[in-house]
Amino acid sequence: MAGDATIDLNADVGESFGAWPMGRDEALIPLVTSANVACGFHAGDPLVIRRTIALALASGVAVGAHPGYPDLGGFGRRRLDMVADELSAAVEYQVAALAGMTRAAGGELRHVKPHGALYNIAADDAAVAEAIVDGVARVSRDLVLVGMAGSALVAAGRAAGLAVSAEAFADRAYEPNGRLRSRRLPGAVHADADAVVRQALAIATGGPVIAFDGSRLRIEADTLCLHGDTPGAVEHALAVREAFAAHGIRVSADRELRG
Amino acid sequence: MAGDATIDLNADVGESFGAWPMGRDEALIPLVTSANVACGFHAGDPLVIRRTIALALASGVAVGAHPGYPDLGGFGRRRLDMVADELSAAVEYQVAALAGMTRAAGGELRHVKPHGALYNIAADDAAVAEAIVDGVARVSRDLVLVGMAGSALVAAGRAAGLAVSAEAFADRAYEPNGRLRSRRLPGAVHADADAVVRQALAIATGGPVIAFDGSRLRIEADTLCLHGDTPGAVEHALAVREAFAAHGIRVSADRELRG
Amino acid sequence: MAGDATIDLNADVGESFGAWPMGRDEALIPLVTSANVACGFHAGDPLVIRRTIALALASGVAVGAHPGYPDLGGFGRRRLDMVADELSAAVEYQVAALAGMTRAAGGELRHVKPHGALYNIAADDAAVAEAIVDGVARVSRDLVLVGMAGSALVAAGRAAGLAVSAEAFADRAYEPNGRLRSRRLPGAVHADADAVVRQALAIATGGPVIAFDGSRLRIEADTLCLHGDTPGAVEHALAVREAFAAHGIRVSADRELRG
Amino acid sequence: MAGDATIDLNADVGESFGAWPMGRDEALIPLVTSANVACGFHAGDPLVIRRTIALALASGVAVGAHPGYPDLGGFGRRRLDMVADELSAAVEYQVAALAGMTRAAGGELRHVKPHGALYNIAADDAAVAEAIVDGVARVSRDLVLVGMAGSALVAAGRAAGLAVSAEAFADRAYEPNGRLRSRRLPGAVHADADAVVRQALAIATGGPVIAFDGSRLRIEADTLCLHGDTPGAVEHALAVREAFAAHGIRVSADRELRG
Repeated sequence: MAGDATIDLNADVGESFGAWPMGRDEALIPLVTSANVACGFHAGDPLVIRRTIALALASGVAVGAHPGYPDLGGFGRRRLDMVADELSAAVEYQVAALAGMTRAAGGELRHVKPHGALYNIAADDAAVAEAIVDGVARVSRDLVLVGMAGSALVAAGRAAGLAVSAEAFADRAYEPNGRLRSRRLPGAVHADADAVVRQALAIATGGPVIAFDGSRLRIEADTLCLHGDTPGAVEHALAVREAFAAHGIRVSADRELRG
Repeated sequence: MAGDATIDLNADVGESFGAWPMGRDEALIPLVTSANVACGFHAGDPLVIRRTIALALASGVAVGAHPGYPDLGGFGRRRLDMVADELSAAVEYQVAALAGMTRAAGGELRHVKPHGALYNIAADDAAVAEAIVDGVARVSRDLVLVGMAGSALVAAGRAAGLAVSAEAFADRAYEPNGRLRSRRLPGAVHADADAVVRQALAIATGGPVIAFDGSRLRIEADTLCLHGDTPGAVEHALAVREAFAAHGIRVSADRELRG
Repeated sequence: MAGDATIDLNADVGESFGAWPMGRDEALIPLVTSANVACGFHAGDPLVIRRTIALALASGVAVGAHPGYPDLGGFGRRRLDMVADELSAAVEYQVAALAGMTRAAGGELRHVKPHGALYNIAADDAAVAEAIVDGVARVSRDLVLVGMAGSALVAAGRAAGLAVSAEAFADRAYEPNGRLRSRRLPGAVHADADAVVRQALAIATGGPVIAFDGSRLRIEADTLCLHGDTPGAVEHALAVREAFAAHGIRVSADRELRG
Repeated sequence: MAGDATIDLNADVGESFGAWPMGRDEALIPLVTSANVACGFHAGDPLVIRRTIALALASGVAVGAHPGYPDLGGFGRRRLDMVADELSAAVEYQVAALAGMTRAAGGELRHVKPHGALYNIAADDAAVAEAIVDGVARVSRDLVLVGMAGSALVAAGRAAGLAVSAEAFADRAYEPNGRLRSRRLPGAVHADADAVVRQALAIATGGPVIAFDGSRLRIEADTLCLHGDTPGAVEHALAVREAFAAHGIRVSADRELRG
């Protein structure tokens, strides 16, 4: 990524549900370039979706679908063993709903990023990855698939001819093998804004990322995730945007994908 | 409708859910000209929706969305007091999902018919009718809105400039005021195929329909409903098709609407 | 209530769901004498229920069930037209679950207070009130039924021979007819702690409550509600407890009911 | 089991949901001695539960809870990775609801048999088995835990001091290792009543069961499952009852458990 100096900044948003608010979407969305909108299966409801899309379009932020397992009680963070056609259809349904509602609001759905357990399982499980890709591609082959850099999902998307955006994380610790450190282990999340900014800069400039054990990793990423539902998300996003401005790094959803 | 001799025949389909089958869609869909596909809120799930759309397209039947209240446990038959923007968004979401999945299958969503309590309440409640129309029109102004002949829903659709298809029922008894006899009262449903055929012919030819009390009604309808979830639905559909053929009445989703 | 100087203080708690927190139960529960625990239909999940019951028992607070309509998306605040036996069974199921889980935690379920739309509808609709009473009484005739003072629910509970606790509200404005001012109207909720304390004292001492239009109401109440999900609930509870202490008013779930 | 000549016959029932019927409970329940009633998480709803309990009690059949994963869309047949306390609480909630509703109907809950994926995973996964046992034991240590003969669930129940009923299957093929042949493989289910009867007799008399590959298995079982949701369940139950009568095998939920 050296010499590129442009990166996409994304956040998971629209994760309120009915009477339960979550996240600070009004503050966070204007700070990113891509908004991943929950689709009603793990979080979000039709009215939340409508309002979140409107917020993103008003901020000039690219709208994406953030489909998850049908598991509100577990917020899509629990593995659910759906067979391939169930999963493909569940993704297709969610993406179709978001695509239609984005068009209804005067925009166009740009990308799809799976949520939670679905995202994590698709990093390693080729069959799950292919089912997701199948569901996305049925709705539109013009959608950009967002997956963890180096994952089976990214590979499946490329194999199917979709544009793919490889994702890295500014606020999560990496293991030496390039995978995210599990949230169940200590040190998995960077609570400190300095650490978040340092990692964001490393990812955006193609410099080495320091893994949890101190080793150096090179992560080739098109998009950088700033989590929507973590307490410091807005502050981290502000700090990252300032640091990027100071270093001449542009943020844009429209950078050429390495896919 | 005299002199027209063309009518649309519709059925509510795709109302299975997970492990629970409902209806005989494979047999019924080829007998109608419009299929109203449940959208996952009162019935249906993504895989059922995908398969039902495929079945309809393979049979050359027009695909419609059949949105309902978010109430699987009540099958959408219980009034749920959603405020206008909740309801509009719920309809928009369901219609968008169906529109996208129909397009994914190589077709185009043609119509929207609300389900159950939503359909019945929208017959009389202008605010509910307008919320439905708003949700539909956001997705596409080319969609045909299906509502009970003479209802507030039909009026709201016409006022908003949507094409509207007025619906009548072959297997339900009418009250003298032109409304359906409540299912909670005896004699609400015609179990006898002869009665169904007689009423279907009357509606298709613009002849008088005999109401429950024996009085004569004139019902101007563009589409005739054959229920999908009643035991004799397939047999009734066959009998109606035969009678229509014998009387030279054409069936088509493409007849010019009176809207 | 003059001369009594003892009142129950209740709050609606356990209304978190999965990843979505709600309320400050740890702070609020020790300040009340009765905790109404959501049962999983409008809010709450099994783990939230278990933890909330444990919290109440550890604080010596009476545990009650707070059943609602099966409507997570609407938080039980939307009318849902269930027929009588559906509603009775839904209440029975929720109360049975809470009773068993309270017993599992070493306590005993003491009361049942319907939630949201169910509570409000049961204030005026005798058939709904009777269905609720039926569901409660099936589980145990020793349960105390909590309903709005002067409501059809209180009347139905008394008619069925249940102990009944009449409820008044410290933080809600009353209309001159003794009903709560609708949340959709301005001035429905007292945001000011002084107003909450003043009304709480009036209710606890049997003094007149000043209705929204300035008229004086006499409300005979056994229990006083401090809402769990309003922002100032903990502060209001603290202020009410202090004022009660200053005026020699005892708080207890065990006061003799006027039922 | 030779010389015992008494066995429990159980069936999974109460698996209808709202408008969707499943199984022929009215015909099947009188033919078994233990009814496992779905609890609303994978199937069943409060009214179905009430009616099913009443049916079992009227037939003199022991009532059990049949808890499952919270996954109506997957009918509890899909693995869902709940952490231990979530799972324990989900089981506790379902069992508590069923226990209270059975008591409300004048009976007493006797047993608990996990459903679907939960049952299968608990056969091999000790942590899942222990979470289930924890949830059951919290509600009552007098409940009988039903698990697959030779499973981790049976072991966990015995280790915790619960009475345990080891289960075998009349209509499912066994692998040589004593586990059920997966439903995804051919020959997993005996459709033929003769094969069902032959296997039922072998299990009840302690004779060898012929595994799928022809090898001989000895399965020590206290209870024999006749599935509720398979097409021939009623016919199979009738045939098994006739064969048992002809061979002098008694059926009873009260046989002494080998636990």
